[in-house]
Amino acid sequence: MKIIIDAMGGDNAPQAPVEAAVKASKELDVYITLVGKTDVIEKELSKYNCDRDRMTIVHADDVISNHEEPAKAVRSKRGASVVVAANMLKNGEGDAMLSMGNRGALLTAGLLIVGRIKGILRPALATLLPSAKGPKMLIDAGANTNCKSDNLVQFAIMGSIYMKNVLAIENPTVGLMSNGEEEGKGDELTKETFPKLKNAPVNFIGNIEGRDVMEGTADVITCDGFVGNVILKTVEGMGHVVSSKVKGMFMRGIISRLAALFVMKGLNEFKQTMDYREYGGAPLLGTKRPVIKGHGSSDAKAVFSAIYQAKKFVETNVTDEIVKNINSMEDKGND
Amino acid sequence: MKIIIDAMGGDNAPQAPVEAAVKASKELDVYITLVGKTDVIEKELSKYNCDRDRMTIVHADDVISNHEEPAKAVRSKRGASVVVAANMLKNGEGDAMLSMGNRGALLTAGLLIVGRIKGILRPALATLLPSAKGPKMLIDAGANTNCKSDNLVQFAIMGSIYMKNVLAIENPTVGLMSNGEEEGKGDELTKETFPKLKNAPVNFIGNIEGRDVMEGTADVITCDGFVGNVILKTVEGMGHVVSSKVKGMFMRGIISRLAALFVMKGLNEFKQTMDYREYGGAPLLGTKRPVIKGHGSSDAKAVFSAIYQAKKFVETNVTDEIVKNINSMEDKGND
Repeated sequence: MKIIIDAMGGDNAPQAPVEAAVKASKELDVYITLVGKTDVIEKELSKYNCDRDRMTIVHADDVISNHEEPAKAVRSKRGASVVVAANMLKNGEGDAMLSMGNRGALLTAGLLIVGRIKGILRPALATLLPSAKGPKMLIDAGANTNCKSDNLVQFAIMGSIYMKNVLAIENPTVGLMSNGEEEGKGDELTKETFPKLKNAPVNFIGNIEGRDVMEGTADVITCDGFVGNVILKTVEGMGHVVSSKVKGMFMRGIISRLAALFVMKGLNEFKQTMDYREYGGAPLLGTKRPVIKGHGSSDAKAVFSAIYQAKKFVETNVTDEIVKNINSMEDKGND
Repeated sequence: MKIIIDAMGGDNAPQAPVEAAVKASKELDVYITLVGKTDVIEKELSKYNCDRDRMTIVHADDVISNHEEPAKAVRSKRGASVVVAANMLKNGEGDAMLSMGNRGALLTAGLLIVGRIKGILRPALATLLPSAKGPKMLIDAGANTNCKSDNLVQFAIMGSIYMKNVLAIENPTVGLMSNGEEEGKGDELTKETFPKLKNAPVNFIGNIEGRDVMEGTADVITCDGFVGNVILKTVEGMGHVVSSKVKGMFMRGIISRLAALFVMKGLNEFKQTMDYREYGGAPLLGTKRPVIKGHGSSDAKAVFSAIYQAKKFVETNVTDEIVKNINSMEDKGND
């Protein structure tokens, strides 16, 4: 299996992608293609001992930064690392791609270059969020605004397949994000989506509310990408503030620093719960081949998790199963 | 000043409302009217030493529980405590009302009985959320779904007046909740609202994102009530999960319990940050007289905060100022 990595994207590029790629090529039984400026990557690679048989560099002259307008940049910068990587994926020169760079550019490249699965109206970004009951999926986490009910149904189907295959959750539950639990609650979109989810091939448990995100009530949370983005960033922001408050609690003086030693195990568990790095990247579901968005601030550990996730994404045939499911739904629709 | 309290609403009624009312009548220079079943309230009141000159009971035979359909219940249960209280407020038999009961019923009673301020399209529920920079307002936090841009502009105006008057924040900043900071980001609603907020009589700082909620980037966060409800409950849910994790960290054994003593000051500050009780209730802004929703799980301390807030709401003439602002906007619109 070959994973294509945009080595130029993210706050810690190229160090983090390269370090993670070296580790992955040794430990995960994968071949890695690093896409970006050859000299920069070579210099970074020279710091490590690695098996160059499992590691290829493909040169890309350009980079799309976080401040560029995504659609325009993807169209005009043919030599940008994310564009080169997407073209390689499209042409079958790899089994999955991963980028920590400009989110919009990756989504655009996924949509326009890698392409949608036939029948999928809009691919969706799926994020794993921490919860009291382990990682849960939020889909769409920000690829699409102004969604229709049919989009939300497809998000639920794709998310369920991913959670079943990649996270080995049997018959994953699906919750529809709303402003109340009762069937009648919601805005126009969720009210229209509710009956459709009842008839969809998913384990639908009804409306859920914001508090269910952290409580982990549903394995898959389906919503419009505007709402999903707000949820994701609210949780991330709260994680930062809370973590720094907890840290501050122990940093007030010598005695409180000592106290930290006494609760070290609990403190580590707490950190782990709040740590997005454990959960890898956010898969874009609905494209012809696996595309994964790593967090912009990913360190090598987070990139490694995302590579591991990309491997599982490929191995467990998520994309094939989405294709089959959509086809069978379309067949039913034609009856 | 007279505050009308629905003594039958909330998880801890009548104990919490009555205890808080007694304390408020002593400490806050307010007169209190407790609405509900006389015998039940009398029995609760008998536990305290209080000045009955400052405390009236008005009998209400019925209660609207949390499980009832709000609009229907308000229309059919004329003798319900929240309905009786709203009618008293409408008739000028009090200056503000407070209920910890069925949220939808209170909103309906506020809208249908107390009534909208002329020119206000939809009253909005405003919640104070904790942030790294102190309490910030989320409006609408769940009274309205499927909002229009004019609603969001009015929410911003009303919220700004409240924050300026009640929380003494000079020239409060307003952020429009969106899925990106740039002006072009958002869904149809926020894209239409952005230019209108630029021209509104508020200190508009542009789009904000979910992470800005806890970071406290804006004093007033304006959004559709569906989105606001999701944010509010996501934050509440995360608060619960995080607090129990932190608590668990210290409860593992004797040594970790001892450690808690060493960080007591920090731990208390942490608790305070996560504690909605500090912030009183959620004002319904845009009704002819002040209506406040206390949290359903309010204890006496939280009810007391909400009474204090109701007093400030009245004293600082929030309602009058909203009326003036809306009139002057309408005058401008007629130019």
